[in-house]
Amino acid sequence: MKKYTEMSREELQVLHQELEKDYENIRALGLNLDMSRGKPGADQLDLSMGMMDVLHSGVDLRCETGVDCRNYGVIDGIPEAKRLLGAMSEVDPDHIIIYGNSSLNVMFDSIARSMTHGVMGNTPWCRLDKVKFLCPVPGYDRHFKITEFFGIEMINIPMHEDGPDMDMVEELISTDPAVKGIWCVPKYSNPQGYTYSKETVERFARLKPAAPDFRIYWDNAYSIHHLYDDNQDFLVEILGECERAGNPDIVYKFTSTSKVSFPGSGIAAVAASEANLKDFRRYMQIQTIGHDKVNQLRHVLFFKDLDGLHEHMRKHANLIRPKFELVLDTLDRELGGLGIGEWTRPHGGYFISFDSMEGCAKDIVAKAKEAGVTMTGAGATYPYGKDPHDTNIRIAPTYPSLEELEKAVQVFVLCVKLASVEKLL
Amino acid sequence: MKKYTEMSREELQVLHQELEKDYENIRALGLNLDMSRGKPGADQLDLSMGMMDVLHSGVDLRCETGVDCRNYGVIDGIPEAKRLLGAMSEVDPDHIIIYGNSSLNVMFDSIARSMTHGVMGNTPWCRLDKVKFLCPVPGYDRHFKITEFFGIEMINIPMHEDGPDMDMVEELISTDPAVKGIWCVPKYSNPQGYTYSKETVERFARLKPAAPDFRIYWDNAYSIHHLYDDNQDFLVEILGECERAGNPDIVYKFTSTSKVSFPGSGIAAVAASEANLKDFRRYMQIQTIGHDKVNQLRHVLFFKDLDGLHEHMRKHANLIRPKFELVLDTLDRELGGLGIGEWTRPHGGYFISFDSMEGCAKDIVAKAKEAGVTMTGAGATYPYGKDPHDTNIRIAPTYPSLEELEKAVQVFVLCVKLASVEKLL
Repeated sequence: MKKYTEMSREELQVLHQELEKDYENIRALGLNLDMSRGKPGADQLDLSMGMMDVLHSGVDLRCETGVDCRNYGVIDGIPEAKRLLGAMSEVDPDHIIIYGNSSLNVMFDSIARSMTHGVMGNTPWCRLDKVKFLCPVPGYDRHFKITEFFGIEMINIPMHEDGPDMDMVEELISTDPAVKGIWCVPKYSNPQGYTYSKETVERFARLKPAAPDFRIYWDNAYSIHHLYDDNQDFLVEILGECERAGNPDIVYKFTSTSKVSFPGSGIAAVAASEANLKDFRRYMQIQTIGHDKVNQLRHVLFFKDLDGLHEHMRKHANLIRPKFELVLDTLDRELGGLGIGEWTRPHGGYFISFDSMEGCAKDIVAKAKEAGVTMTGAGATYPYGKDPHDTNIRIAPTYPSLEELEKAVQVFVLCVKLASVEKLL
Repeated sequence: MKKYTEMSREELQVLHQELEKDYENIRALGLNLDMSRGKPGADQLDLSMGMMDVLHSGVDLRCETGVDCRNYGVIDGIPEAKRLLGAMSEVDPDHIIIYGNSSLNVMFDSIARSMTHGVMGNTPWCRLDKVKFLCPVPGYDRHFKITEFFGIEMINIPMHEDGPDMDMVEELISTDPAVKGIWCVPKYSNPQGYTYSKETVERFARLKPAAPDFRIYWDNAYSIHHLYDDNQDFLVEILGECERAGNPDIVYKFTSTSKVSFPGSGIAAVAASEANLKDFRRYMQIQTIGHDKVNQLRHVLFFKDLDGLHEHMRKHANLIRPKFELVLDTLDRELGGLGIGEWTRPHGGYFISFDSMEGCAKDIVAKAKEAGVTMTGAGATYPYGKDPHDTNIRIAPTYPSLEELEKAVQVFVLCVKLASVEKLL
């Protein structure tokens, strides 16, 4: 394969005509495919249908301490749910609070709480002139939307294969007291599928923030979401590491069963130091009378323990691994060596990150949309939706069927080629 | 019966000795009873166990528009749930957003949102020097705790049998732009069981607030929670009334199935004007990817429609009516004519409100506690926990069994007598 960048203008013009013809043909098919969001496929949801059977009118709905899960009470989670999500988070159940159906909601509430009430006795952020967050990029659009919504200034931090640029992180955090947080998806990151290295986690745990109310927002969304049995990433457990580093209060760790059981009908959890949890509870006991304990019990009865969770996740992996491989094989075959794109090869999580030539991402996504394939909006992986080089596109292979995915990726690579040639011409 | 206030000092002293002896005997029993919180009894929860059977692995979990309830999506509720809670709220489903498991949480979030983002484009409350809320008293402690938590100044408004003192409400709301809201439990109010009259609702709908971002927080928690088939209160529907009065945006109406199905595992809803719902949605779409749609579907399949809800509530009534009657009969028999207390006779809801002689409520609750009966803390029904006359005690008869309740009420009336005599001596 000849690199596009090494082609003559004439070669590019010939190629452009061919690609345009292919594109018109595909557009005529009137496809309607979606590779935009990290949604499980229907076959993955079927894996959890047994969860609908574990509770029925013949089951005693009391938890192990005898509390009736059907009634009010137990604000921070039934013990067996704390144990299950504690095991999933590699954290002592005593450091766990169980929440409702969405960890995103808990992150939002943590920011909202910090705005109006401050962090552990510090000045509420709404009374400060400026609050800043560090945002490893590309990253998760929903995180950035939260900080944007609260008027928090976001600073881009480049992501590498071993995590965010820690020199930059350390520099900013240790010198600027307006920096109050950093968004992290430390394992199988969204969108690259990168996992922070041991050294990165250790450097996080040893941060010396200028702001006493700085916190690491550690969104461990894909902790057990491996694609392979034999090729798994390993992430150092941050809470223990922070405690050992004499920095126990520096991190909030979030997790949920969203892509384990049913997204939107799962349970979420926060793990943090006792002092932080006290802060969370103080807010929570005014905010709600308690979360859905029946659903907590349902999850415990279905998954039982960490082994049950891992076994379940292997079934997920068996369904989505072929989808990741289909995308990667197609990218390799169709775009390999052309010099018009690079992509990641994750061992888990929900995404593949694609980087086009500079200034092409928006055009590629628009062309795909025009041909009936919805991608995550170009720029979405950056704060304020602004990808400074217009290169990053998040590919979410899980939701379409294999057949749909095959067509969708074909459209995608064609659009990459077409947009790249047009850029070069 | 001779009124205590008409007894001579000698008579009171004799009575005091007798009551003290009775109190010591009861205290020796080592009771452990609870009349403090509006929790359904286990027999009431059993009524909803069928809800655990409507969903099982053989059921298609798509809602009527074909959306898979097991996956992400549909941020403001599946249509059939909007219809069910719309019917329950007497509001068009188009004016409904379905939330998670707790309407208290939605109220909290509404205040939090107003603090950080303001109401429909108005200045965020956190940037104002002073925000005030009107609080009909006695009222619901959880409401007052929310406004207290956000540093909102609370102003007591006397409650009458037909609702809050509307002269005072109108005067304060029309003259003071710092007054941003009023907490209302308009039907079978907490704790009196009063229902706002037609005139009261009409005056609410016609308010002319000085603040453009003033809202009525209409917590219709007991809309279908009647005790009797033939003796029900009727509440004018506020949303329609406000619209007719040219004041469509002035009210947020909250409801939930907390005391219909399982408290903490139910579904909640807000009804409001389109402009208000837009404000709610703007926040919500950053805060969460969506609420638990599987639980929405579960509720719809179990209750079906408004008739199903009413039929179910009749079963609740059959279980709790004898408890209310037991308490009222005991109060009538033991305290009637003594001039040491007054109490309400609600037709629905979860509470009876008791007013002791001035300065006795704290003592009565302490004495009951000492004898093994937990009551709602005296003062809890007032903002900041401060009952200015120390008279109000909320009685929650639903949670104990009839047998337990009988003992608990005996203890209570004894403590009322003892505390009153001690006050008079």
